[in-house]
Formats: sequence, C-alpha cells, structure tokens
Amino acid sequence: MKTKQKSKLSYKWMDKVPEKGSFRSIFKWGKGDEFKHPSQGFLQVIKQELNLTDSNFKTAEKLGNEKVANDKPVNISSKIAEQLKKIVGQDNFFCDTYHRLKYSKGKSMEDILYLRENIVDKISDLVLHPKDKADVLKIVALCHQKKIPIHVYGGGSSVTLGLDSPKGGVTLVMSTHMNQMIDFCEENQTITVQAGMLGPDYEELLNLAPEILDAGHRYTGGHFPQSFEHSTVGGWIVTLGSGQASSYFGDAYDLVISQEYVTPTGHFTTLDYPGTATGPKVNDILKGSEGCFGVLVGVTMKIFKYLPENTKEFTFMFSDFESTVKAAKAISQSEFGMPSILRISDPEETDVALKMFGLSDSFFARFMGFKKLKPGQRCLMMGQADGEKKFAKNVHHQIKKICKQHNGIYLSGYPMKKWRKGRFSDPYMRDALNDYGVLIDTLETAVTWENLSELYENVRAYIKKQPNTICMTHASHFYAQGTNLYFIFITPADTIETFKKFQRGIIASIEKNKGSLSHHHGIGRMMAPFLETHLGKEQMDVLRTLKIHFDPHNIMNPGGLGL
Amino acid sequence: MKTKQKSKLSYKWMDKVPEKGSFRSIFKWGKGDEFKHPSQGFLQVIKQELNLTDSNFKTAEKLGNEKVANDKPVNISSKIAEQLKKIVGQDNFFCDTYHRLKYSKGKSMEDILYLRENIVDKISDLVLHPKDKADVLKIVALCHQKKIPIHVYGGGSSVTLGLDSPKGGVTLVMSTHMNQMIDFCEENQTITVQAGMLGPDYEELLNLAPEILDAGHRYTGGHFPQSFEHSTVGGWIVTLGSGQASSYFGDAYDLVISQEYVTPTGHFTTLDYPGTATGPKVNDILKGSEGCFGVLVGVTMKIFKYLPENTKEFTFMFSDFESTVKAAKAISQSEFGMPSILRISDPEETDVALKMFGLSDSFFARFMGFKKLKPGQRCLMMGQADGEKKFAKNVHHQIKKICKQHNGIYLSGYPMKKWRKGRFSDPYMRDALNDYGVLIDTLETAVTWENLSELYENVRAYIKKQPNTICMTHASHFYAQGTNLYFIFITPADTIETFKKFQRGIIASIEKNKGSLSHHHGIGRMMAPFLETHLGKEQMDVLRTLKIHFDPHNIMNPGGLGL
Repeated sequence: MKTKQKSKLSYKWMDKVPEKGSFRSIFKWGKGDEFKHPSQGFLQVIKQELNLTDSNFKTAEKLGNEKVANDKPVNISSKIAEQLKKIVGQDNFFCDTYHRLKYSKGKSMEDILYLRENIVDKISDLVLHPKDKADVLKIVALCHQKKIPIHVYGGGSSVTLGLDSPKGGVTLVMSTHMNQMIDFCEENQTITVQAGMLGPDYEELLNLAPEILDAGHRYTGGHFPQSFEHSTVGGWIVTLGSGQASSYFGDAYDLVISQEYVTPTGHFTTLDYPGTATGPKVNDILKGSEGCFGVLVGVTMKIFKYLPENTKEFTFMFSDFESTVKAAKAISQSEFGMPSILRISDPEETDVALKMFGLSDSFFARFMGFKKLKPGQRCLMMGQADGEKKFAKNVHHQIKKICKQHNGIYLSGYPMKKWRKGRFSDPYMRDALNDYGVLIDTLETAVTWENLSELYENVRAYIKKQPNTICMTHASHFYAQGTNLYFIFITPADTIETFKKFQRGIIASIEKNKGSLSHHHGIGRMMAPFLETHLGKEQMDVLRTLKIHFDPHNIMNPGGLGL
Repeated sequence: MKTKQKSKLSYKWMDKVPEKGSFRSIFKWGKGDEFKHPSQGFLQVIKQELNLTDSNFKTAEKLGNEKVANDKPVNISSKIAEQLKKIVGQDNFFCDTYHRLKYSKGKSMEDILYLRENIVDKISDLVLHPKDKADVLKIVALCHQKKIPIHVYGGGSSVTLGLDSPKGGVTLVMSTHMNQMIDFCEENQTITVQAGMLGPDYEELLNLAPEILDAGHRYTGGHFPQSFEHSTVGGWIVTLGSGQASSYFGDAYDLVISQEYVTPTGHFTTLDYPGTATGPKVNDILKGSEGCFGVLVGVTMKIFKYLPENTKEFTFMFSDFESTVKAAKAISQSEFGMPSILRISDPEETDVALKMFGLSDSFFARFMGFKKLKPGQRCLMMGQADGEKKFAKNVHHQIKKICKQHNGIYLSGYPMKKWRKGRFSDPYMRDALNDYGVLIDTLETAVTWENLSELYENVRAYIKKQPNTICMTHASHFYAQGTNLYFIFITPADTIETFKKFQRGIIASIEKNKGSLSHHHGIGRMMAPFLETHLGKEQMDVLRTLKIHFDPHNIMNPGGLGL
C-alpha cells in the first residue's frame, strides 16, 4: 500500500485497496493501492471556505464498498453473444454486471456519485477484449448486421460521461490486448501503435528507443495529460486531448500523422504525409469523433527528440490576474517559440496552491508580503522550456524579460518541482475528500484572448454564487490566438440532481460567455446536449451527415456527440 | 513597360503589352506590362540540353495575339441571366466569350497551350463579380434552385486546371469587390478578410497595421507562394497552398482560424478557437475543398509579428544530393525551431541556378572547384531564419552547425538575394520561352523522408527518358516527418496531346512512388482523375458524402476533386 502524502491530522482516510467486485473498485482513481490525501494547508482552505469543521471529517459515508450485484439481464440474444464469444475467445468475453458497469463508467464526479449510491445504469450488455484488428473487424461487421451498439473503452479516464451506454450493446476494451507497437520509423520520426497502448508504455518505449528499438536517439511523445497513466493513445485522439506540455509539442490533434479505422461501412488507413494538398483531409475529419464513427485501431504519431537535460523551469508571481494574463499573452505572441509547460493561476488557485505547496507560512510568504504581492490578488505563473539547449535557454530568457516588463517577480523553480510531483497524482485526493462529502469537479474551455476576461469573470461569478464553494481557475495551454480556462470547483455534498443542475449551469455559462464546450476533455454525453447550440445547426448537420456515412445503423456510441 | 532582366543576346523577346481582348492577354503571366527574359546562362543551358540553336529563337510562334471571337452561345436562359444581372448589377455582369474564357482558365502549361492554339473550351456561360456576401447568397440560392454550375475565381493562378468549367454555368470573380478587410483583432493576433483579397494587399495591410489599423505592431501573414501577387487569401485556403516561408509560418491549412461559407444548403461561420475539443472540426473539413462545397466568402487568419530586421540568410553547398537531404532532415528534426525559408536543389537545378545567378564562371565557381564541389553532383541549400532576434540567430547558428557536420560549405547570403529577386517574377520567363516553343511545367508532391530517395530517382528517371529535357528538382517545405519535391521540367514543343501524355505520366509516376498528388497546388481537374486511386475508395466516399451534403445538386465546381 503506497500513500503519497500523510496528513498530519487525525482524519481516518480510507486507505484500503477496494474490495474486488465493489463499486469502490470501479470509481477509485488510478491504482487500487495508491492514495493521496489533501495536505494540511489544502484541508484548512477547504474547511474554511466550505464552512466545515473537524466533525465533518469524522464519518466517511457512501464509500461504495458494497459488491455489485450480478443481476442485470443481458439484452443481447445468447446466439449473438455466442458468436461474439467465439470471435474474442472465452477469456476475453464478460457478461456479468460488474464488468459491464466497470467498463461503462468514467471518472467524472457524476459517475462517482452514482456509483457511491450503488446505482447501476446505462451499462453495456457485454464486455469484449479484442485480441487484434481481425477481432475488431469481425465484431463491427456482426454488430452492424445485427444493429448492436458498440462502445470503445480506452483507459477509462473520461470525465464527460464518454462511456455511458444507455442503449446497451457491447463495450470493446482496447487496452487489454491492443496495446502493441506496430511500426517505428526513426527516419520519419513517427511511431505506429495500436490504439489501446497506455501513456506510460508509450512514453517508455520512446524514451528507451535505443535499447528497445535499436534507435539512434531517445524520443518522447510529448503528450502528458493529467490522465497520462490511465489513458490510451487512441483515447487522446478520439477525445482531442491536450498534454500538460502542449504549448510546445501540440495538442493530440497536431500529433496524429495517420489513423487506421474500422467503421461499420469500411476499413481504411489515412495517408501519412505531414503536409499535402489533396482535398479535405480525412485524417482530420476523424479526429475527435469520440467513438461515433468507428473503432480507431492504429495510429501513427509524430515523436520528438527526448532532451530532458535541456529543461529550464521558471516560476513568477504577479500582482494580479490581469497582468498575469497579459504576460502569458505576450509570451504566446512573441515569436521565440513556446515553452512546453505554461500555467497561470487566478488569485484563488494561487492561494490554494501556495498552501498545498506548503509555502504560505514560510519565508516565501514573507517575501511575497515584502513585494506587496497580496493574498487574494497575487497570481502564479509556472512553466518550463524544452527543446534544443539554446532554444530552451532563449525561451526561458525571453519569458523572464516579458514577465519583468509585467512586474512579475521571479521565484525559484521550487513551485514547479512541487507541481511536478502532483501532476498525475492529484486526482487521488478527490476520493479521499469525497468520502467526507466534499465534491470536486472541473470544467474546462477554450477561449480567445479577446473573450477571456469576460468569460473568466462571469463563469467564476456563477460558480461562486453557490454557497461555500471554492473556485480555482488556471490557463494551461497557450496559442497566439488564445488559451484555455480550467475551472476547479469544490463544494459540499448535495443531492446528485442538485449537483448536476449546478454543474450543467456552469457549462451553460461557459457556452454563453463564448467559451468552447471543451478545450481538451472532449464533450461526452455531458456536453453533447449543448453541441448544437454551440456549433449551430449547419455545422451540426455536417457531423450528422458524417455519422450516417460511417455508421448508417447508428451503432457506434449511439447518442455520443449528440448524434 | 517594365522589363525585369534584359537579355544580352539579340533574341527578339515579345515584350509588348498584349492586345486587349486577345488570347495572349489571358494567358500571359502577371501584369500586362511586366516581362522577364531568361538570363544568358539559363538560355545556354536550355539550348544545350534541349539541343536547340540560335535559329530556334528566330521565329516566335503561336503568340496568341488573335482576338477572342465573341461566338460562344450562352447556355443559360435569358430569364435567369437577367435575374443574375439584377443581383450583381449591369457593371458586374459579363456574357461575352472573352470574359468567360478569361475567368475559366488558369496558368497551367496546358491552359497556355490551348489558348495559344486559340481553342475556346470548357468555359462558363456568365461571369459575375459579386459586390458582397449578400450577392453571393442570392446567386448560390438561385443557382441551387435552377441547377446552374458555379465556379469561383480568386486570383486565377491555378496550375492544375482548377478553373475549367466543362459544364458551363457562372463564374464568380471574388477579387473585384470582395477584397476588403472585415475585422482586425490585434488582441487575438487575427485578421478577418473577404476571400478575394489579393496577396500584396493582404500583406501591405498587415505590414502597415500601425498606420492603417492603428495597431501597436507591424504584422505579416507569413504566406508567400510564388503566385503571391496573383492569388487571393481564399484561394490559398481552398487549394491548400504553402508559402515559401511555410516551414516556420505554416501552410495555408495551419493559418486558418475560421471560415465563413455560403453553400447551396447553408451559410455559416466556423468557430474561432485556436484549439478546442468539441468533435470533428468543421473548419478543417472545409479546407481544400476547391470550390466543390460552396463559396468561401470570409476568413479569419493567424497573423505574426513582422520582424524583417531579424532575418538571417544562409546558403550552403554540399557535395551531393544525399548529404543535402540528410542535412535538411536533421534541421527539421532538431527541436530548435524551423527556418522560415529552406530550399534544397538537386544537382541539375543547382547547376542551372548557378548559371541563372551568374555564378558559374566566376570566382565563386573556382572556389567550388577548389572545394571539390563538382557540377552535376554539388547541391545548393538556401534559406533564412525569422522570428524573434535570438531565436532567428540560434536557428541560423544551429543550421550552420548541422551543415558543417554534413560537409556543407557555407557561402554568402548572395545566392539568397538573387533568388529573392526572382521569387515572384520567374514565371514571367515562361511566356518568353514558350514563344519559341520551349515548354516549362512543374509538378510537386509531398513525401515522407523514408520514401524521398526512391521517389526522386524514379520520377526524375521518368522525366529524363523524354529526349532533350531538363529536370530540375527542389524541396522547399519542411516537416520533421518529410518534405515536398518540386519537379520543374523544360522540354521542346510537341503536340498538346503528346505533352499531356508525358505530363500525366509524371503524375502517375509520382503517385506510384508514394508521393501525394500535390503538396501545395491543389489537385484541380488535372490530378482529380488520380484521387480515388490515391485515397482509396473508402476515403473518396467520405468526400463524396460531404459533397452531397453541401451541394446535393452538384452545382459547385461539378467534377472538381473528381466529385
């Protein structure tokens, strides 16, 4: 049992590997035996802002330790089920309720709330672990013929209800077997992998390319979403993810050279030219299709030289959010290349971060005071430059110059090191807090520079109208034309319906204030009902047409993307 | 009358502004009163390789000075023609054969050969110059209702038969009125213009942003195709063009933030987020549609800080093509950012270039000999770095380092200056040579590094099989995964049919050798017959489906993209 951070309080965190077959084993973030607790500083903020006391942390509730009853009938005929079993083999075929539930749920706060209530809903009828492309071809052909819905499960980290299966059907789990390398082409700086390869396996393969692949260099995929450890290469593409280093390496969208797709009406691989002028690019049309067009079985991705020795970290503190945004905009528009990681936090997130990093009562805090950087106003910028040595050095140098112009105070690389420690493990904390009725959820959006301030103010105001609620906001993916905003809200438990209403209200507020429905989580079934308003009917009709083209019987994630 | 380069020979170049209404006034490149002759060195190469003597340059033939007869009947009812005239106004309505021919032809060698033969074929019935979007909406609605083909003319520089109108119909000329700025957003670093704005107007507007737009900086669009002076912003996007500085600024594809489209079934503007995760991106689906989906009326483009003071030029000479390619690949894969311009020439192009630049008999040539860089083997690399000062300096520095590792000899910036002089004006020379029966044509392709060598060897071998033919090849747009190859072939006059057979054979050879049908010219009706083989039926079906969606009556450039 590994615990990432021991609380100094006497709270009894529920650090037990979830029981096999339990609801908790489904919704718990990450590995069964890894845990992370809120730091004392973070917990203090939560108690203060949510108006809680130690007594609220005495009795953990709705832990989901109950076993999932095996009582949901399979709505696929036994004849077809047998045919499917024959395709994948007995060992890769599951029809029990537990497996069906496990692979139909993601990691959204809403998923977790339902699972803690032992509610089994919107699950597929069968879970299949295809061995290879041949299996997928047979499954898709049969399901197309018999009009049986197909859902695709990558790493299961969806926070947008991307895995719900309200019409049942089968779920294909890609990460079990379809996680192998297909081809490595050092000359083209590309790697081709099966869609189910998980982030760490992908990155390790590239980092160890000289040893494993007999390559001349070490490489990196450059894609590190917070879900890195529990998401697949294919999942990154079908949901249009962005890694924490996307400002330099690009979003998943930019990293894809070509794709191999099995759709109900065809099986094809897109062309692998990095640039071409032969009409609308089918490769790009498929990106972000969230399982609605077919099954992504293989992808050829751009890779990059792995040069961690060149990394240059930086942290700055600004007097207010406005000047922080201005500095980040100037960095994004100044033609010296981009840092790989760039993050700016609003005052509320900055204060929480300093407490989480244990910097609020320290010499550091006194230094802040001395510099007149006040809590509730001051804002953090963190990041790192990567790439060739002098390139990275110049990016670092130019950022320092710009930040100075905006009266940013250069801090050490220390906060970056603290952030790096938690970059993949912070979600573990959610389970610990949820056990005591503290809900944590996030929503994120893309926005142009022009609309950022209004969006930020209005969405934040909406969230803060909810009593006793923390709202921390950051931007973490930068373009010359705009950025994203990522809202983290922490609020006391309520009924699921009330929570959903509040959360959907935030989405509506984002959309109304000219934010996109998602910058890098995809839309899932959570944002899908807003998509037509967002795109307009004409553009929604284009997606409908593509849907009918690839999937005339509407079996691929039916209802996904609102299609 | 401006003549760009006086020949020292006594050839009588046809430097006369073409007669109004003549075929020559249609096919002549560029401005009527601008001319450019081959340099003495270039002419020497041509005579030698094509086995010509001075006597071949005595009698100019097929000059196209004949007037276009006004004798082609209009195949649109006068009632509908009147309705269309009412929409655009009398002054913007043309039904005479000359105008119909002029706006149905591009600048391919094939276009020119037919026009020199006074052949009037595949022309539209009416030429309309829409005043604004409202006109376009009315025209498209009427033509959709009456099933009348619509062709869109931007700057007319197509070299792929992109303007042919074999089913007649109407041609909309976008550059006459629809060439205005719609919006400038310095905060987002974007500009929104009508699709018909020409390159020089677009670039001037951005360069003079402080004076014209009250901006805080000067900007550049970063897009400089050879056709820059005679192509439109909309044309760049619908054909997926690349500028000569694309390796840094990106291809037209990368520069488009959003588009406003009028299609037979809808009118919409795509969203303007630089990155978003809300399903397949309709903005990207539309790029490269070559007028087959609708009329692009407005575009929002990324712009860049204009920093010409930071430009750092470079030229290197390598001992052979292989090491030149290797150096260019290393540059493209080394993570220090990209130079804006990067060009490598094969031995044949290098030798011609040195003669064109007047460097073959000079001190420079002796220096080459001293360095054992032999004619017929040595290869030129030229380029420039742009961007922020230290960024550009480092790119320049790293390129020098890489080239040295590949035994490249650093030359002055002089060849770059010579190249820059001719970068937009070289096509004028084609007319001069065509007058004496020397044909010049180009084909270009995208290719991955892995396939470059085989493609180069095989396509070059195919071209060189044609007796007395020059084949110069360069790569000029670079990515970590590959580049383009641009074949320029110069061959003696023959019948149009023989020439076409030869030229189509080159396209087939490119396709067979794993090149794309086009890297940045689009495919037009020239490559369209090859598209289904290139993409495969499944992907061609996706384009067919989109075509039917946007244009169910097949009125938008019918037959374009092979649809």
